[in-house]
This record gives sequence, C-alpha cells and structure tokens, in this order.
Amino acid sequence: MDALTTTGKILRRAKDATKAIIALDDAEINRALCAMADAIEDSADEILSANEEDVEAARGSISEVMIDRLKLTRERISGMANGIREITALPSPLGVELERRVRPNGLEIKKISVPMGVIAIIYESRPNVTSDAAALALKSGNVSVLRGGKEAYRSSAAIVRTMRRGLASCGITEDAVNLLEDTTRAGAYELMKASGYVDLLIPRGGAGLIRACVENATVPCLETGTGICHIYVDKDADIKKALAIIENAKTSRPSVCNAAEVCLVHRDIAPKLLPELRSILVDKRLAEGKAPVELRLCPEAQRIIDGTPASKSDFDTEFLDYILAVRVVDSPDAAIEHISEHSTHHSEAIITENADTAEHFSARVDSAAVYVNASTRFTDGGEFGLGCEMGISTQKMHARGPLGIRELTTYKYIITGNGHIR
Amino acid sequence: MDALTTTGKILRRAKDATKAIIALDDAEINRALCAMADAIEDSADEILSANEEDVEAARGSISEVMIDRLKLTRERISGMANGIREITALPSPLGVELERRVRPNGLEIKKISVPMGVIAIIYESRPNVTSDAAALALKSGNVSVLRGGKEAYRSSAAIVRTMRRGLASCGITEDAVNLLEDTTRAGAYELMKASGYVDLLIPRGGAGLIRACVENATVPCLETGTGICHIYVDKDADIKKALAIIENAKTSRPSVCNAAEVCLVHRDIAPKLLPELRSILVDKRLAEGKAPVELRLCPEAQRIIDGTPASKSDFDTEFLDYILAVRVVDSPDAAIEHISEHSTHHSEAIITENADTAEHFSARVDSAAVYVNASTRFTDGGEFGLGCEMGISTQKMHARGPLGIRELTTYKYIITGNGHIR
Repeated sequence: MDALTTTGKILRRAKDATKAIIALDDAEINRALCAMADAIEDSADEILSANEEDVEAARGSISEVMIDRLKLTRERISGMANGIREITALPSPLGVELERRVRPNGLEIKKISVPMGVIAIIYESRPNVTSDAAALALKSGNVSVLRGGKEAYRSSAAIVRTMRRGLASCGITEDAVNLLEDTTRAGAYELMKASGYVDLLIPRGGAGLIRACVENATVPCLETGTGICHIYVDKDADIKKALAIIENAKTSRPSVCNAAEVCLVHRDIAPKLLPELRSILVDKRLAEGKAPVELRLCPEAQRIIDGTPASKSDFDTEFLDYILAVRVVDSPDAAIEHISEHSTHHSEAIITENADTAEHFSARVDSAAVYVNASTRFTDGGEFGLGCEMGISTQKMHARGPLGIRELTTYKYIITGNGHIR
Repeated sequence: MDALTTTGKILRRAKDATKAIIALDDAEINRALCAMADAIEDSADEILSANEEDVEAARGSISEVMIDRLKLTRERISGMANGIREITALPSPLGVELERRVRPNGLEIKKISVPMGVIAIIYESRPNVTSDAAALALKSGNVSVLRGGKEAYRSSAAIVRTMRRGLASCGITEDAVNLLEDTTRAGAYELMKASGYVDLLIPRGGAGLIRACVENATVPCLETGTGICHIYVDKDADIKKALAIIENAKTSRPSVCNAAEVCLVHRDIAPKLLPELRSILVDKRLAEGKAPVELRLCPEAQRIIDGTPASKSDFDTEFLDYILAVRVVDSPDAAIEHISEHSTHHSEAIITENADTAEHFSARVDSAAVYVNASTRFTDGGEFGLGCEMGISTQKMHARGPLGIRELTTYKYIITGNGHIR
C-alpha cells in the first residue's frame, strides 16, 4: 500500500488506533457511543447544511428515489443518534470465554472473543449507514474505515466529523472512526487491496459493488446481500398460510434482499393455490389501487392462470420489484433441486403442515435461513434478536445470514503453562 | 468458469456431490472413512509403484529434503490409513444446535452447524496431505477438491483412486473426493477463481503459494501458515523456564510455522539471560555435535554477548532455520509494540512470573495464540485437542489458529413459524 496517498495515511492511522480501542472496556465503549450520538444531535444544523449541498449537487443526475434516500431531515438525524444509543444497550460481544480446556499435560487453553481490528465498509448513497456502521464496529471493539458514495460525501463527512468530536470529548482517539476522502473507483480498489491494514471488508450495496469487492479484494471480504429467495408451497400446505406468507414476502417491501422472487408450487396443490394467488397479488391489489404483482409463469402454471410467460432468466433474477416468477414442481425434491441450482442461498421457505417434509426440506436446502411456515422477510438482525446489523452474509465463510456485532469479532487462544515445552 | 476444461468438469461433479454428502449421517461418514483407510492399505503396492515413478522423475530436479518428503514407504502408507481411522473417532462437528431462541412473536430460530460444501485445498509435495485433507473434509460433511504438487501427482492420483474405490464400496459417490489433473499454475488460478463452485479454499504450503491464493482468489480463501513467532522474556521471568522454552521453541523443529524466530528481552534481565541463552543455543549444541543457533543481535544485545549484528529485515523474516533474532526492549509495552509491528499474528509467548504483566500482554497482543510460560510450538490441532488439522489460520476472518474439523463447517438458521408474516 502506498502510504503517501490520503487513503494510505488514513489506513495507517486506523491500524494504529486499534491498539487504543482494544484496551477499552464495554463501559468506556458505551460512553463513547453515547457521546457520538449526542454530538450528532447537537450538530444537526451542520449535518443538514452539508446534506443540502449534497442534495443540490445530485439533483438531476440521480433518480428521485435516490434523492429521497440521500436526503436527511432533523427526524432522520435523531433516528441515527437513537440507533447508536440502542447499540449501547446490547451486551458486549467481547471478552466472552468461548471455550476453556485443560490438556492432559496441564496446559490451560482459553478461547476468547476479541475484535477483528480494522473493519472497512464500502457503501452507497444512504448517509445513515455512516453512523450505523461506525457504531456497530466500535461496539465490537473495532476501528472503522468508511467509504461512502460520492453523492453523499459532504453528508458523510459532516456525520463523521461530529462522531469524531464525540470521541474526542471522552478522550478516545478520533481515529476510531474514519472516512475515506477518495470517493473514486480507484480509491475503492486501493481499500480492497490494503492487505495488512484491513481485517474485514464488508460491501453494502448493489450486486455490482459486491461483485467488484469479491473479485478484486485481497483483504478478507464478506460477500453480502443479493437475495433470490424462494417460497415452496408443498402439497400439504395450509393454503391460507401460504397466501399470506407469499403476499408478505413479495409485497411488503419488494426492494430488499429478503423479499421473495420465486414461488415453487407442488403440482397437486397448484390448481387450487394459483387462482387464489393471482387474485391476491393482482386483482385485490388493483382493486385497492396498488401496483399489481406481475406473475411470470412456467408453461404448467400458464395452463392454470393468466400471466407473462417466464423466460429462463426470470428464475435467476433478483427483481427487487413487484414481479414474481412461478414454477410448478413435482415434489419437494424437485423444489430442493431448483433452489440448489438457482438460489443465492440467502433465505428460502417451505409452506407445509407435514413435519417430515419440512424437516427433509430444511436439512437439504443449503441457504443461510430456511423457513418453515414463515415469511423470508424475517431474515434481519433486528427480527433475529441480534440488534442492528451490518448486512446479510450470503457466503459460508465466517458468518452466514444477519451480521450483528458478534459477527464483527474473532477469537484468540490464550494458553497458560508453567514452563511447558513440547 | 469454463465447464469444458477438465477442472471445470471436476468442479461441477464436486458441487453436485455435495447434495448426496449433506444427507449422510456421522455413522455413514465414518464407514466411508474406514473404507477409504482400508482401501489405501490394501492398495499399498499400487501407491508405492506410482510413488516410485514420482521419485524417479523428480530426482535431480528437487532437493534431497524434498525427495524425502515425497517418498512413501509401506509404513508411511499405514500411517496415512491410521490417520484417517483416528479422524473417525472424533465427534461429528455437524448438526450441532449452536443456539435456539424463541422470539416474542413465537418464531423459533435454531442455528445449526452444517458443512461448507466444496472445500478446495492447494498443497505442495507431501502426498500424505492428500489423504489427510480428504478425510478431514469428509468428516465435516464436505466434498474435497485437491490440487497437489506436480512432483507428487502420480502418488496423489493413486491415493485418490484408492480412496474413491473405498467410497464406492460403501455405495457413496466417488465424487466426494476429487483430484485435479491440471497441475499447472493456470490450473491453480482456475481453481482460485471458481466462484460458485468452491465454498472455501485453503492453501497449504510456503509463503509464495499462500500469497498467490490471497491475491488471486475470488472464492473465499483462508490464509494459513507463515509464522514469525516471538518470545518475550519479561524482567519478572523465571530464567530457567525462559531458557527451556526458547530452546524448545527454536530448536525442536525449526522448519515449522510455530517455531520461534524472535526473542525480545527486557533490559533488566538481559545481562543475566543473554549469556545463558548463548551458552544453551550455541556452546551446548556445539559440544553435543548439533548445529548451533545463529544469534542475530540488536546493538544492545551485542554489548552483552557475541553474535551477528541483526539487520532490519531480520525482525521481519520467517527463518525456518537455526537462526534467532534477539532484541532488548524497555518494557512489556515495547515488546507488545514490536510484536504489533513485526508479527504475522500466529503465536507469541511471554515468560513472566508476574500475573498482571501476563494479563496485560495477553490482552493486548493480537495473535491467534498467546502463551504465558509455554512454548509457541503448542499451536497445533493435536496439541489443542482438536485432532488432526488442515493448517493454521493467520487471518481473523472465519477461524484463527489450528483448523480442525469444526472450522471446516458453517451454520444455517432454521426458523419455524405458524404462518408468521412481518
């Protein structure tokens, strides 16, 4: 890494700050987090004015939806501060004795949870990620290096500036929270390749950003996010539960990664389920003045209800929209096979009243979260009781599913002897 | 990934095999492992004859030490088979309920240990890694893709052939254990970049191999191995313990990653310790006809004993040889600072009778294993009671220290509701 770039200098300072942060106890960390939250609220005017500049500069070049994501209000700023305060209420994930064993030779081996060190987060335009990510990292004893989107730079810089003031007010090094100034693509690559300076890199954003990190990072990187989630309606399903769950998983928030994209329906129940599904997702929503769900149907489903013929790629697409691909399958094993081929291994559900089928399905479907008679929308740190989350891992290494503060730690072994040699 | 290459075809079959292996219980896995062990012993002649071809072909082009690592005997083959049988005795790391919680809404969330899927191992010339790695992967429910060194290809191919015969004899898919035919560098790169086909890549070998994997892999990769291990002798050390531990950590097996490379000595104890250290590592060994340890000394140590002046790079080198860099430091914090700057974060030790100093040191030194009054040589799966190991992780993501069978698993969440929607 080139220490002469601004990024290089920040990374050196961040690494150096880990030595001070590793020595803090949970009470000191919580005091620092409260000071960060207070500083954010106290500096609302400063943050709002920086945010206004971002919004002005971005207008015209990004969509209204993106502008809305970017825009801060006094209420959103209080939300950020309260988000940090909620994190202080979580039990510390640090210093937990995960194991202790005494070997036959008398050596005592303890396995203790400890911080990762420096956690880097590359994210896109929502400024609130700035405070969330910094607070989650600090609660778990880590120094954060944040690299936000270009459009939100002034807002993020103001938020980080105030959080650093909060840290300084409790006598803690400001370098516990860092924002990279370089928001170019080259800057992101420099971060991805900062071996020896970054202990964990977490990309939070769209599929393109995540792919760029996975393909280019030489630092340890956690793949997050993309969710092609399936709901399989078994022949032994309770149709009422099935309909409510599909409606919830598809329409409650279609833009998020735990929304369902594909419905697999057992052949025996399809003639009864599909007309009701169409009625709920299309007719009822139209009657209520809501956007109907576009059904993309396999040939067999088309014989039962009307809808768009599904193309092959529809079963490999994260729509993030009011679109649901529907396929009729012969058996639970055919559903398992389809999921194995097409899923991103985020979240899948089976709807069935048959306990054996549920067990067979949940043992064989290889995804981070497998639901029995519940909506895939529950894959979320808060819903899992982990508190706020840093994202959803879709890889198997290190952590799977919601990334809470515990998933931002590692462990070390402390071994005590009395002159033991091997 | 190009499915038309031989590697591509093998990876597809390996991924497909995970579906059958995930459905096996521990008794079935143990039967398969025993059959693999029996097949290896029954086919000793076939393996020896392939190995002889490897040794003949390699003679002249690699060193005698490497030839010795490559060479198999009937005894070593029995050792391989017994190594597999020992693995069957370990408790299964699969299906363990790591957590269970019921949320206020009644959702039941279980966190269960499950296999990673496909584990790829790139290793160098020792043919016994072939059977070790395949057995550890299978015990933890994984399919293995092995890519051994060119020099050992015929031996590895014979070992894999016999293990696959063993699998077939119990009706289990042979594709649970796979050897890549392509031993070129391009072949290794293809494996490192096989996203979607490899759930975990573990390089086992020298620093060059590990760096190549870390820098090029797009699949999740676990950094292993390099050990610049430190022993800090505190002013409150018991000198006898210190001498025995340094001698053991440096000379019992200098070529391995948990051997000590650097000794840091508190200024107050240096005048007493260093002459005795020199006497044990140099004079005593010479008198016994053994290779003396070359001491590379900082200026202050040079004022106390004779030795080679240390260059700057001596404190950043994994010697893997009878060489020890020695530096005098002012305090435990100076030792911690030196370790923070120069260590590979594998294993470090403090020698002290002062419990507070020991705690201060072990809380702040950020390495996989931190020893108090014991030799760094204990960082080893067997010594830790984990059974055989797949290597020693020197990164913080996923697993740290010895990689036993539990470290070859991941987890999934199984969530049971009764029509729950969000």
